[in-house]
Amino acid sequence: MTRYKLTIAYDGAKFHGFQRQNELRTVQGVLEKALAKMTKGQHVDVIGSGRTDAGVHAFGQVIHFDYPGNMPAENMLKAVNSLMPLDVIVKQSEIVDENFHARFGVKKKTYEYRVDCGHYTDPFKRFYTGHYPYTFKVEPIQVAIKDLLGTHDFTSFAASGGVIEDKVRTIYDAKVEYRADQNELVFQFTGNGFLYNMVRILVATLLEIGNGRRDEHDLLRLFEVKDRQEARGTAPASGLYLKEVFY
Amino acid sequence: MTRYKLTIAYDGAKFHGFQRQNELRTVQGVLEKALAKMTKGQHVDVIGSGRTDAGVHAFGQVIHFDYPGNMPAENMLKAVNSLMPLDVIVKQSEIVDENFHARFGVKKKTYEYRVDCGHYTDPFKRFYTGHYPYTFKVEPIQVAIKDLLGTHDFTSFAASGGVIEDKVRTIYDAKVEYRADQNELVFQFTGNGFLYNMVRILVATLLEIGNGRRDEHDLLRLFEVKDRQEARGTAPASGLYLKEVFY
Repeated sequence: MTRYKLTIAYDGAKFHGFQRQNELRTVQGVLEKALAKMTKGQHVDVIGSGRTDAGVHAFGQVIHFDYPGNMPAENMLKAVNSLMPLDVIVKQSEIVDENFHARFGVKKKTYEYRVDCGHYTDPFKRFYTGHYPYTFKVEPIQVAIKDLLGTHDFTSFAASGGVIEDKVRTIYDAKVEYRADQNELVFQFTGNGFLYNMVRILVATLLEIGNGRRDEHDLLRLFEVKDRQEARGTAPASGLYLKEVFY
Repeated sequence: MTRYKLTIAYDGAKFHGFQRQNELRTVQGVLEKALAKMTKGQHVDVIGSGRTDAGVHAFGQVIHFDYPGNMPAENMLKAVNSLMPLDVIVKQSEIVDENFHARFGVKKKTYEYRVDCGHYTDPFKRFYTGHYPYTFKVEPIQVAIKDLLGTHDFTSFAASGGVIEDKVRTIYDAKVEYRADQNELVFQFTGNGFLYNMVRILVATLLEIGNGRRDEHDLLRLFEVKDRQEARGTAPASGLYLKEVFY
């Protein structure tokens, strides 16, 4: 058996998320189906760095799996790509030792979130951005986003129903820029881990700060109150991209 | 009756083209359905500046129609948009006099064609670009494209089966640029009219010139021979955008 680490990109619009789910079309599902074809029927378990929800995209999701035989990494890339649908692509392939684990080995992750700021929904962006057609200023968001840096309890920013007890995470980098040519706000967050829906809740809250409906330093208050009801909104899946995973 | 001129954008990926076709989902079809809802069942005939094929997009398609009553132009825009699916948007609306005709009044049109030059198919571009994974140089294409300027017989560049006798068209502007940040070649053509598949055949031929498989001035030869077999390829619909229509 040889362990392969693959970096993949996918357009999440037509997937029911990353994780395998019986009859539904998922990223893990199409990968495992392709690998089973290559092994002539033997199941190969694909491990991802983490799940992504339905509609969420990836520029750089990382997976690993153990494959019978020892095909060169470049051949594995070509073989898997030849069996992928057009909305998934393998970008990099390497052979790793058995200590590498796509999920447990994650040191940090970077997520991007794109928000279209146009008055109307742009037909070309409906699957690839969130949409905020209200007035906002970028400066308060830029001030607020710096409050994320460091280690905080993100209880207010975790979807209810999660089973994870420890809601403390460390954010290493967080920034936002307005791209005039696209009329988009682009957020980027790098941290040691992210709770379920955390990025999407953060974006919704930051947009309310930009709109003037919340104080510039409301994130600090939300860290304190530890109450999901106080953060309210969740930005849609369509704007979210898993950009890079670091080991 | 009041005549309205609307400028619309659409993502053509999920449409069977512009033109109404019984049960199939078309742009004209969804527009006429919306207008019939607004008139409580009365059919309103929508006239476009021209058809676009299945998969072809528009940033600025123009339509006109005669509507009972005299709603302000801005209300028409809002009313139609409230009934549009997310892949169509009305960008502008104006009231015009009965001499305006979206098809017969066209003076010139601009088409854009986007080609992704990546080695593999980009999951995010599969519906929005053509794809040319082969080597090419931009300079020969830039030289060749200037041969299009002026008035020529485009018989070699018209899909066979067309019923139009006169294949002479005038091109006012034609250019190409390589956008490094997107790894895309972007073509733009402005002319007084375009034959069926003409832009897509021109792009396929220009790419062969960039690849060195044709002489830099092969377009001049193709104008002379008037033979569709000599131009061969047709770039896919996914890269084509009707950008602007001039009256």
